[in-house]
Amino acid sequence: MTVGIIMGSKSDWPTMQHAAEMLERFGIDYETRVVSAHRTPQLLAEYASQAASRGIKVIIAGAGGAAHLPGMAAAFTSLPVLGVPVKSKALNGIDSLLSICQMPKGVAVGTLAIGEAGAANAGLLAAQILGCQQPELQAKIDEFRTQQTETVLANPDPAE
Amino acid sequence: MTVGIIMGSKSDWPTMQHAAEMLERFGIDYETRVVSAHRTPQLLAEYASQAASRGIKVIIAGAGGAAHLPGMAAAFTSLPVLGVPVKSKALNGIDSLLSICQMPKGVAVGTLAIGEAGAANAGLLAAQILGCQQPELQAKIDEFRTQQTETVLANPDPAE
Amino acid sequence: MTVGIIMGSKSDWPTMQHAAEMLERFGIDYETRVVSAHRTPQLLAEYASQAASRGIKVIIAGAGGAAHLPGMAAAFTSLPVLGVPVKSKALNGIDSLLSICQMPKGVAVGTLAIGEAGAANAGLLAAQILGCQQPELQAKIDEFRTQQTETVLANPDPAE
Amino acid sequence: MTVGIIMGSKSDWPTMQHAAEMLERFGIDYETRVVSAHRTPQLLAEYASQAASRGIKVIIAGAGGAAHLPGMAAAFTSLPVLGVPVKSKALNGIDSLLSICQMPKGVAVGTLAIGEAGAANAGLLAAQILGCQQPELQAKIDEFRTQQTETVLANPDPAE
Amino acid sequence: MTVGIIMGSKSDWPTMQHAAEMLERFGIDYETRVVSAHRTPQLLAEYASQAASRGIKVIIAGAGGAAHLPGMAAAFTSLPVLGVPVKSKALNGIDSLLSICQMPKGVAVGTLAIGEAGAANAGLLAAQILGCQQPELQAKIDEFRTQQTETVLANPDPAE
Amino acid sequence: MTVGIIMGSKSDWPTMQHAAEMLERFGIDYETRVVSAHRTPQLLAEYASQAASRGIKVIIAGAGGAAHLPGMAAAFTSLPVLGVPVKSKALNGIDSLLSICQMPKGVAVGTLAIGEAGAANAGLLAAQILGCQQPELQAKIDEFRTQQTETVLANPDPAE
Amino acid sequence: MTVGIIMGSKSDWPTMQHAAEMLERFGIDYETRVVSAHRTPQLLAEYASQAASRGIKVIIAGAGGAAHLPGMAAAFTSLPVLGVPVKSKALNGIDSLLSICQMPKGVAVGTLAIGEAGAANAGLLAAQILGCQQPELQAKIDEFRTQQTETVLANPDPAE
Amino acid sequence: MTVGIIMGSKSDWPTMQHAAEMLERFGIDYETRVVSAHRTPQLLAEYASQAASRGIKVIIAGAGGAAHLPGMAAAFTSLPVLGVPVKSKALNGIDSLLSICQMPKGVAVGTLAIGEAGAANAGLLAAQILGCQQPELQAKIDEFRTQQTETVLANPDPAE
Repeated sequence: MTVGIIMGSKSDWPTMQHAAEMLERFGIDYETRVVSAHRTPQLLAEYASQAASRGIKVIIAGAGGAAHLPGMAAAFTSLPVLGVPVKSKALNGIDSLLSICQMPKGVAVGTLAIGEAGAANAGLLAAQILGCQQPELQAKIDEFRTQQTETVLANPDPAE
Repeated sequence: MTVGIIMGSKSDWPTMQHAAEMLERFGIDYETRVVSAHRTPQLLAEYASQAASRGIKVIIAGAGGAAHLPGMAAAFTSLPVLGVPVKSKALNGIDSLLSICQMPKGVAVGTLAIGEAGAANAGLLAAQILGCQQPELQAKIDEFRTQQTETVLANPDPAE
Repeated sequence: MTVGIIMGSKSDWPTMQHAAEMLERFGIDYETRVVSAHRTPQLLAEYASQAASRGIKVIIAGAGGAAHLPGMAAAFTSLPVLGVPVKSKALNGIDSLLSICQMPKGVAVGTLAIGEAGAANAGLLAAQILGCQQPELQAKIDEFRTQQTETVLANPDPAE
Repeated sequence: MTVGIIMGSKSDWPTMQHAAEMLERFGIDYETRVVSAHRTPQLLAEYASQAASRGIKVIIAGAGGAAHLPGMAAAFTSLPVLGVPVKSKALNGIDSLLSICQMPKGVAVGTLAIGEAGAANAGLLAAQILGCQQPELQAKIDEFRTQQTETVLANPDPAE
Repeated sequence: MTVGIIMGSKSDWPTMQHAAEMLERFGIDYETRVVSAHRTPQLLAEYASQAASRGIKVIIAGAGGAAHLPGMAAAFTSLPVLGVPVKSKALNGIDSLLSICQMPKGVAVGTLAIGEAGAANAGLLAAQILGCQQPELQAKIDEFRTQQTETVLANPDPAE
Repeated sequence: MTVGIIMGSKSDWPTMQHAAEMLERFGIDYETRVVSAHRTPQLLAEYASQAASRGIKVIIAGAGGAAHLPGMAAAFTSLPVLGVPVKSKALNGIDSLLSICQMPKGVAVGTLAIGEAGAANAGLLAAQILGCQQPELQAKIDEFRTQQTETVLANPDPAE
Repeated sequence: MTVGIIMGSKSDWPTMQHAAEMLERFGIDYETRVVSAHRTPQLLAEYASQAASRGIKVIIAGAGGAAHLPGMAAAFTSLPVLGVPVKSKALNGIDSLLSICQMPKGVAVGTLAIGEAGAANAGLLAAQILGCQQPELQAKIDEFRTQQTETVLANPDPAE
Repeated sequence: MTVGIIMGSKSDWPTMQHAAEMLERFGIDYETRVVSAHRTPQLLAEYASQAASRGIKVIIAGAGGAAHLPGMAAAFTSLPVLGVPVKSKALNGIDSLLSICQMPKGVAVGTLAIGEAGAANAGLLAAQILGCQQPELQAKIDEFRTQQTETVLANPDPAE
């Protein structure tokens, strides 16, 4: 597995599947796993500690509320960790965003936008990270970006 | 040790010492320790896992920013954990408060106010928790509360 | 009664029943009562003042908006008071959270998350507070925590 | 005494004295008193309950953080209560403002702006309330308003 | 007319009718009027300037978003003005609340809570202001408050 | 074309059509175009750079979230640019508003309110900008404003 | 006078002078005036109503807190009104920003950033509005923009 | 050059130098450049478009306020872009954070914390991204992380 997508709860899947879809689009293999920072802290420690030796290159972690999963995964590994703030019930994800993003000096999480767009972009950024060293993957990303641009250009009229 | 006071960084001590002072006032023994959720996650796991067997009854945890310490301590123990949001540089502790307070169902942190008042109250609430079973301690708390009330009553004039 | 669950209005019950359910799970007896800080301040004063002598060990108080109930209950007792911010109509509970949590030095409220998760965790934290002195209860809590962990571990695939 | 100015702590006086100064300007007699909702809840209950029978017509209450004083004063009296959110240490008074303003249906607090301007305006609004029935006072208020207008008109150049 | 209830738009009526209902309960006569600070500034100037001479004693003004109506009414009269922040489409009324409440020194608006509860309380506070001088009205308010208390006391069980 | 209405995505059209409708009301010709700052940055550079030479006098740009379109359009032209914050999924447009409004010294965007009202007002402000030099257009705007005032005056009763 | 710069208080001048400086740079004549929406509402009504007939083409209005000046100026004129949120004491200008920007449909204010940058940009946007019809002014603006770009390009090393 | 550190203004350097220092610690070569999204949009387009062909592997972009630089850099390249929200004057960087983080689906920015800690972590995350393919660099990062842990462990007493 090249990318590990973890999330605090099954209920985060409708958001996090957008990360998986993006990776699939680029032919990047990944695994998905429910890992709860609060309910399964040992699993989190093991998962993050062993990820590099299992061949994982990037971890994508999604969580909502007091979203500790991305930061704690980063605490147990020196792989790049990308964090996705899941929209929370009461505060719409502003709590998730601040909990994930405001990490102290020395342990980093690359944070994406709240919700589905952020999850998709976590997949995209993971691909970009991997693409640095893989010309074929890089070409696929460039093609995706080009197609994306062309789709906008092909539909210039918003009122249609 | 009855109460463990942990904090993410030495820079949290000017805030967290107010918890220590409150415990001292009630003659409750405590230990203080820098335990960083992000820089020493193994220590955190060990500290929180072993706290109960070491005789600790309540953990007070202070942290700022993406303040994961209280929630992760709670993940590794079933002792009561009280969280103190330390005022953060950019966002004045609103990030700390949300990161500590917005825990998911199943792992609880009792959150106090941002900053010194919250730290002092964490010491007080720890004393109240312990006081349930210790009539002598309970009497000291009642006395503290009474004195506090009397101090206000004795100085009724704000302009003096 | 060991735990008193109070709330500002009948409309808080759908949230606060999650505290009751958690206590039931642990076999802790409790009472529920509508006590409004603003509409029944005398009742609040009496309820909180007399709670300890009636054998109550922990008070759980839920309220929304200018949520004064938890803080005022704490003003009238030295029992531990746990506060649950109920999601408010306009501001989604951020007003409730700040009103409950930002207590001044000397009178403490242990604040949980906004809404149902916070109410459930208030029940759990009350159990943890009581469990300090009751090995049987402590064992139940540990079992709950273990089961909770196992439930996550048994369902590792978010997409299933 | 016609107006009672109460505040949660002596440290609120530099803010609340602006209410006193405004009342003095109109020749309205007032008293000032430290009354803490959390540290002296009985005093608060007594003060607010007896205010009307002591001849007080309007209560001005200032507090910061989990600012329960104005709302609880209103709970114990049916005199008009005006609330002044005092700027808080961490959150600049947004917590004070929400705690004071977001009262539930049935118990009202007329809330002014955060800080000194709000305190001065609490004094002014108290005067306006009293002025309804006192033509002389009303004339003074109108004069104050006119002078205020003239001061602006007399200094039209901001760069001078 | 004793109380003038004005609002920026017809769409504010479902909120503001709660002010009217409260006044009716106390037998206070009132008028309701759409007065837009932005679309009918001349009407606003006239309405507020002439209100006192028309016998109005208190103005209740509700508005949403950049809610200038209460503050501008206060600018044109020295009658007490009570402001009701109407819940806004995008920002749930936090914009309305700040626009109404954060008035500069010298022109005051007594601000109530966002939405229906705030509108009802504006009616109640208007009654309290008028009640200072009318023993009969004061008695009705006291009775309302007593009934309100009794309703809570009569329904102590939230789960029923 | 006198006014160019651009937006980051087709999904912004239900908001931005209110700008178009306002321009139509004044007989101002306009074009609408999907131009994405992030997906079609070259198009944005070209569109904004060439707008003046194509005869466009005002650009209206709407976008949501990290809403870079208005600011980047302003970076490529010295035509007046008006920005409309589109309501975003998670944060209701407060992110859009800050992203559009908080421009650094030297490149300006005139920002309107979040959502439909802001879009309509962007159309209106564009007309006002053009009207400075076109007496006929100015007359139409004055007439629109007068009618708007009269509509309010004609329906004074909110409860009808 | 071509541009009228008004502000709610003399204390707004250190912010608003940046608007004046920008206009001077382009040789645009302007006047500055303290006009308080709340303390001099009649002056505001007169100033805004008469501005067009006095030859003013654009109004720049700065205010802080419950910043009603820009919106009320817009209510009395159909000239373009640009609003500058002045940084407020307690809330750093987020109240000013929302009060100015969140205008209802039908009366528009083009809002700039909080503080000095916003004031300077109000001057710049006013120039851009006037420049539409004045090739010489337009050339000056283009030159300013070019110089600004060149200044950045000439100092590429941030560490120097 | 392996890493390009760009920032909107020279005034961002005291923040962004922490990114440079972190890269130096790992012996990663980098360049620093002032590139303003708003004042030098062409330079931004060129810089970001050409970065990959110049051998750059990761772009770190810091900006404050309406911080468009990171998102626009990402729009012009498919290299990984890391964004650092610089603390802004009025809003302490919450505007910068939202402007950088809330990117739409299809163009990603990995966002770090506000201010110095975020800048340092951008350097660290860039190193982690590069380290995936460079065992020597990876070893240095692991050593840095180990030292960091040991520093905390060696100073366990916060009060010393």
